[in-house]
Amino acid sequence: MPELRQNMATKQWVIIAAERARRPQQFLETYRPLTEEQPEYDPRCPFCPGNEELEYEVTRVPPGEEWQVRILLNKYPALQREGERMRSFDGVHRRISGVGHHEVVVESPRHNVCPALADAQHLSTILQTVQSRCCELAQDPRIEHIICFQNHGEHAGTSLLHPHSQLIALPVVPYEVRMRAEEARRYFDDTGTCVFCQMVHDELRSGERIIVENASFVAFILYAASSPFHTWIVPRRHAASFLRASAVELADLGDILRRVLRKLYRGLRDPDYNYIIRTAPLRDPGHEYLHWYLTVVPRVTRVAGFELGSGMFINTMLPEEAAAFLRSISDA
Amino acid sequence: MPELRQNMATKQWVIIAAERARRPQQFLETYRPLTEEQPEYDPRCPFCPGNEELEYEVTRVPPGEEWQVRILLNKYPALQREGERMRSFDGVHRRISGVGHHEVVVESPRHNVCPALADAQHLSTILQTVQSRCCELAQDPRIEHIICFQNHGEHAGTSLLHPHSQLIALPVVPYEVRMRAEEARRYFDDTGTCVFCQMVHDELRSGERIIVENASFVAFILYAASSPFHTWIVPRRHAASFLRASAVELADLGDILRRVLRKLYRGLRDPDYNYIIRTAPLRDPGHEYLHWYLTVVPRVTRVAGFELGSGMFINTMLPEEAAAFLRSISDA
Repeated sequence: MPELRQNMATKQWVIIAAERARRPQQFLETYRPLTEEQPEYDPRCPFCPGNEELEYEVTRVPPGEEWQVRILLNKYPALQREGERMRSFDGVHRRISGVGHHEVVVESPRHNVCPALADAQHLSTILQTVQSRCCELAQDPRIEHIICFQNHGEHAGTSLLHPHSQLIALPVVPYEVRMRAEEARRYFDDTGTCVFCQMVHDELRSGERIIVENASFVAFILYAASSPFHTWIVPRRHAASFLRASAVELADLGDILRRVLRKLYRGLRDPDYNYIIRTAPLRDPGHEYLHWYLTVVPRVTRVAGFELGSGMFINTMLPEEAAAFLRSISDA
Repeated sequence: MPELRQNMATKQWVIIAAERARRPQQFLETYRPLTEEQPEYDPRCPFCPGNEELEYEVTRVPPGEEWQVRILLNKYPALQREGERMRSFDGVHRRISGVGHHEVVVESPRHNVCPALADAQHLSTILQTVQSRCCELAQDPRIEHIICFQNHGEHAGTSLLHPHSQLIALPVVPYEVRMRAEEARRYFDDTGTCVFCQMVHDELRSGERIIVENASFVAFILYAASSPFHTWIVPRRHAASFLRASAVELADLGDILRRVLRKLYRGLRDPDYNYIIRTAPLRDPGHEYLHWYLTVVPRVTRVAGFELGSGMFINTMLPEEAAAFLRSISDA
């Protein structure tokens, strides 16, 4: 029989449709060139060396010609850097001026590097660069929340192959982020425990959904995964904000992120995916009950009318089976 | 400057990215055959006449060989009809047995009818059939909520061309549905008014986002549309549940749905879309503050990392411009 499972942190239900279950291999992409089968340099790519548009550059690491990571202003930003945050509440029409920051993290000088094939040290450098930039953006008093994310592949919403991720700094706390904080606060009020710490504890005890772990992080398929291979990478140390992760933690995050992405790359043949760093709102950080983490969502299924109408998902793979499959794949 | 707009009913923010704005014609699908350019009959289609599998049939309208609409049990259901609703709450692992109903509405005997090209009378017959079936399913004491939806086209999540929609009857109220009810209740508590009635009133007064209206319904692009052409079709009469819409209302809904779909079909060349009937939970119907409606979501954009991480959307078209465009398209 299928079952409905609830994510304890978000209170969202998913349908785990066991009778419709598919084998992991059925999620393999139909044939398409792997990322690294593309050219190493593309003269038309705005992110390739030689095409740098310096007026958009925020920072490069290391400084000089031999950069490994660059942060750029998005040339077509969703939000505008200059201007005041103005609220206008007119009857049922509520709006705020679209001020904020929308930046691009160019993750390598090479055009065809798949993030899954980067080494841990390089991923850590990227994460440190992103964290530093988030700390700078947090100084902007108009900013309430920052979303750091990567779109890999067409189904994940990217149009540029060159490896990159993005930062969007918002003048509001999104409704969904507020609701998640509210649920975590309620759990804390009821139990005196951080719900994320509790989930990590329970997952380690059971072990059946663990993918991989290291000194600072645990990566697991969610008990109530909303899609096959929906993964959380959670720091063992309780902390609400990614902006305060230690240097050691960022090194360990580079290691575990590489291992998770490598397993997905090998097991599902370079699937399209998004990853998102979920961190606390800047001005209302909920130190006791919020806990930052990174979530990886391989985009192997589609959102249709049921999902739009209910906010629920139908997952056709048992989370325990997805985790066992990824454990069996080498991350070397 | 871009702006953030808030949907008063759901409290969700969207970014209206005016600087990135595209013209309506840019959302035209690249060339592909229109639905009605497919064959009228497909011998391999399970929904075509002659291929009826009677063991799955729930009802047909009218009875006999010359059916126009059939409701079938889904052959690969996400939920199981038989069995008890059992809750199991074990630490952070909460689950409910996956009982419920998952049915398919075959909307025409003809394989290649685009719902946008059906006549109003036929759409009303479909809606009446769906409503009757929902009323039957509501008798099942294990059921808490029903989602009625249509997926049209590959990007909207359908794999079968033959025109059809679906019903999923759930043993829980989805979290998102609960939150929407909660926000509507708060608005009612604060103002003594239904937020949906207020929105209809304000949209009619301003007129700039109206697409079309008739005696019972108003169709408009949302002020805080989460994507271009995101449309609500709202009954003028305050009522929480679709299950209690009158025969006249269902006739008028067939008329206005046809006109909205026809405008999208002509204006955007048979775009992929979902429509969803949003109705009150069965056991906690919030008579005063909930208001049922039908939402149409053309799938002309992709969900990427930002949307997954924030629950917010970036809409690259001004809602006022989308509405003016659709008003200019004939619905004949």
